[in-house]
This record gives sequence, C-alpha cells and structure tokens, in this order.
Amino acid sequence: MRIAVDAMGGDFAPAEIVKGCVEALDRADAEIVLVGREEAIRAEFEKLKFKPDGNIIILDAREVIDSDESPVRAVRHKRDSSIVKCINMVRDGQADAMLSAGNTGALMSAALLYLGRIEGIERPAIVSAYPLLGRKGRFALLVDSGANAECKPSNLLGFAYMGSIYMSSAFGVKNPKVGLINIGTERNKGTALLKDSFMLLENSAVNFIGNIEARDIPKTEADVLVCDGYTGNIVLKLTEGVAWNILKLIKEKMTESLTSKFAALPFAAKLKSLKKDFDYSTYGGAP
Amino acid sequence: MRIAVDAMGGDFAPAEIVKGCVEALDRADAEIVLVGREEAIRAEFEKLKFKPDGNIIILDAREVIDSDESPVRAVRHKRDSSIVKCINMVRDGQADAMLSAGNTGALMSAALLYLGRIEGIERPAIVSAYPLLGRKGRFALLVDSGANAECKPSNLLGFAYMGSIYMSSAFGVKNPKVGLINIGTERNKGTALLKDSFMLLENSAVNFIGNIEARDIPKTEADVLVCDGYTGNIVLKLTEGVAWNILKLIKEKMTESLTSKFAALPFAAKLKSLKKDFDYSTYGGAP
Repeated sequence: MRIAVDAMGGDFAPAEIVKGCVEALDRADAEIVLVGREEAIRAEFEKLKFKPDGNIIILDAREVIDSDESPVRAVRHKRDSSIVKCINMVRDGQADAMLSAGNTGALMSAALLYLGRIEGIERPAIVSAYPLLGRKGRFALLVDSGANAECKPSNLLGFAYMGSIYMSSAFGVKNPKVGLINIGTERNKGTALLKDSFMLLENSAVNFIGNIEARDIPKTEADVLVCDGYTGNIVLKLTEGVAWNILKLIKEKMTESLTSKFAALPFAAKLKSLKKDFDYSTYGGAP
Repeated sequence: MRIAVDAMGGDFAPAEIVKGCVEALDRADAEIVLVGREEAIRAEFEKLKFKPDGNIIILDAREVIDSDESPVRAVRHKRDSSIVKCINMVRDGQADAMLSAGNTGALMSAALLYLGRIEGIERPAIVSAYPLLGRKGRFALLVDSGANAECKPSNLLGFAYMGSIYMSSAFGVKNPKVGLINIGTERNKGTALLKDSFMLLENSAVNFIGNIEARDIPKTEADVLVCDGYTGNIVLKLTEGVAWNILKLIKEKMTESLTSKFAALPFAAKLKSLKKDFDYSTYGGAP
C-alpha cells in the first residue's frame, strides 16, 4: 500500500511528520510518499540520521496551506501545495490513501474539488471513534464529527451509510447498529432535521435502532452515531472536557495529602488508563 | 410569598408533592396553595397525620394533564386542570409564583397562552444550573436547556437578557458574563444561527465574552451559557451521562477486591459528593 503524507501540515511540521513516517516504516508494510518542500524534508532526515530507502520517497511541493487560511480559496489557488498534491496522487491512482495533520477545512475542500464524491453521497464527513465507557476497547463511530455544521436529512442518511460500511469493512462489525443522536427517544422528538432524518433512516437499508439521547451516548449499543457536524463537535469535545476535568479533580483529591497519596497508589494506573481513553491525542486521527 | 403548587404533576403525584409541601412549610416562610383534586390531597394529609393550618390551603382542580398529552391541545381544553389553574393564579395576582413537576410542554404552553410574554421577550426558556467542576458550589446558567429545539438569533438574545437578569437578581452576580456555546472560539464559527447571534450579542447590553467551545464548558468563566434548547439538552444530558459513567467505573475499580475496598475508604465520601454534583435530582428544578 502506498500512502501520501502531507509533510507540511500540523503543529511542528515537517519535523514531527517526518519523524512519525520514519517510525511507521519499521512497523507497517507500507510505502510512504512524503509531500512537501524537499529541502526541509531532507533536513529532517539528516537530523534523524536517516538514510531513505525505496520505502520512503519525497514528492516536492512548493506551497503550504496555513491552518488559518480560507479553505476553498487556498485549495483553488495553491495547486502546488502539499495538501492538493496528496489528494491528486489519490485521484490519479499514484497513492492508495493520503493523510494530513494540516488545515481540516482545506483538506475537505481539496477532497471535494479534486477527488470528487462517491456516487450517492452528497457530503464528505469526518469520522471519530467515541470511546464507550466500561467496554474495553469498544467505541462507536461518530459521523459527522465536524465537517458539516449544517446538514440536510439526506446528508445524515449518507453519513449512516458511510459509517455502517466503514464499521463493517474496517472493523468487522456485522450489520452495524445505527443510532440518531436526539433529545428524546420518541420518533417525533427534536428539530425538523431530526424528525425527517428519522424517517429516512427507518426506511433505509442501514440497521437503524432509533434515537439515542445524549445521556445514553457513553454506553450506547449503537456502533454508529449519526448527527450533523455541529452536534458531533459538541458531543466529542464536551465528553473530553467533562472526563478530563473529573479525572483531574479526583487526582487532586487523591494527592492532596501524603496519606491519601499512599492510599491512592492502587488506583493510579487505572485512572491513568481511563484518562488515556479520553485523550484526543489517543484517537486524534479521523478518516 | 404565596406559591401555587401543581399537586397532580410528576411521578408519584400527589403523594410526593404533598409530602414535599408539608416539609417545606417548616423550612420556608411561605404560604402554599396546593392545586389539584381536593379529596386526593386531603387523603395525603391524613396519611401524613398532617393538620393543615393557614399556611397551606387547597384549591380544587378537577382535571389533570398527563405527561404524554399534546401540550397545546391539553392546556386549551383542560381549563380546570391543576397546571392551568396554577398559571392563572399567577396571572391574577393570587400567587407570586407557581411550580409543577408535571408535563413541561404543557407548562410552557400554559405560560405562553394564559400568562403571556414579557415585552421584548419572544420565547420563554428553561434555565438549568450547570455545575462547574472544581469550583465548590459555582454553576453557570444554561439557557435554553430544552424549551425551544429550534431558535432564531433574536431568541438567543432574549435568553441572554433573561439569564443575565436572573443571575444578578437571584444570585447577586454583578454584570454576569455571557458566553455563546459554539464549535470554535472565532466569531465566524458555527451555523448561520450562531454567527448571527454572535453579532446580536456583541451589540447588546449584556456582558458578552464570546464563543465557548464545548471542551471548556465544565470550567467556563461565563455565568450564563446561551444556546438553543436542542443544544442545551444535549449539553446537560451528555455531561450527566459522562460524569455518572466515569464515577461508576471508578467505584467498580475501587470495590473489585477487598484490598482495594479498604484502600478506597478515604475517597468514598469525596466520590459521593462529586456524584451528587452531577445528579439531575440535585438540580432537578428549573425556572
């Protein structure tokens, strides 16, 4: 498999990106194409005392899209940027996949503009793994978790299909259960968007199990949680905020005196692993 | 102060409502009017061996609005219901306030239909106290937390004014800080509703401090968090769900063996108080 990697996107690029790719070569049977300013990438290789072999090659791209640039404008004008070049490698069959830690909006726009849509799917979505509590390693897919702040019912139907197919083909879940995030379990609850989406999902080929209330998200039976990107962003970030703050508070209680520090020893590792479950850097990547 | 209480609304009514009112008489200097089926209320007095004095009186109401009735229809047709009679007591100056644990939609509709709106306020809202983590007893007001699933920017401006006035007059907070729940801190973030609301709030007399990302809600500096009722419901219930599930998981870890049970003793009370902070029955009432 050949993966095109945007060497110029994200915090501390290209240093951290190059470092990650060099590490990945040892672990995965993949060929990596680093896309970005050739001299900057070569300089990182030298710092790492790394001699590139045939499994890692460089594709020079002179332009960089910054994180605060207007996405649509940037991808239209910067044809020689690392993001656009990565996307075009996938389009032209020169790479099987691409990844970027850069401007998410530009990435979405470049995908729409140069790669195009799958037939029947109106909008691309960002998919996140939502860690389910008390279920070791189990997660639900949250679609859309931030690409489309405002959606139509047919968009949510598309997200349900994409989430189901991804969950079954990438994780082997058979007939994935699809839930719709809503403010009540009854079919007539919520906004016009949600009422209409309920009807579409009910009459679709996905395994729709109904509305999921926010209170039940952390232990949901659903494999795929469907919502608009505004809601997905709120759900993801609020979960993170609440979880981190509670765990921080408990840690403070546990370490406020020497006695409690000793008493807390048996739980320290458990708390740490729980904290990791909610750390966005654990699940940072999103298809 | 005279308070009209809907004796027939909520789980286990009228038994629990009557019991609560009898208890309240000992604690507060208020006069209570219990509104509902007189014979049912009297039967509860007898069970409690309570002899009503001048501080608690009964106003007979023959009809009851059930929790699953269509709100607007119910309040239009059931003029002799406990909810409508409570509202009308406030309208006619016979009571200073009213409370009900019954059908929330019917309560909102009855308020709109019989009590009417304050001039300049388009929509009533439900206000909840959102407990802030690690700040003993501090909370933010979440407006709207569920009355209006779909809103216009001017509705959110109204919520901001109501929340500010309530926070300053009921809790003595000077010049309350108002935040807008959004998916980013920049002014151009979010849906059309949020972009327009940002501009209205910025140019209003409230002390607007900008957008608040979901991740920052649990430790926000804002005294009033403004959002539509759909978002408010998601924020409130997701917080509850995440907090409860984490605390439950920690409790399980702590009690999974006898050794850990002993080690956990110093934290048991602390965890319990934290759990109480997130229990919706602690902050169950909502103006």
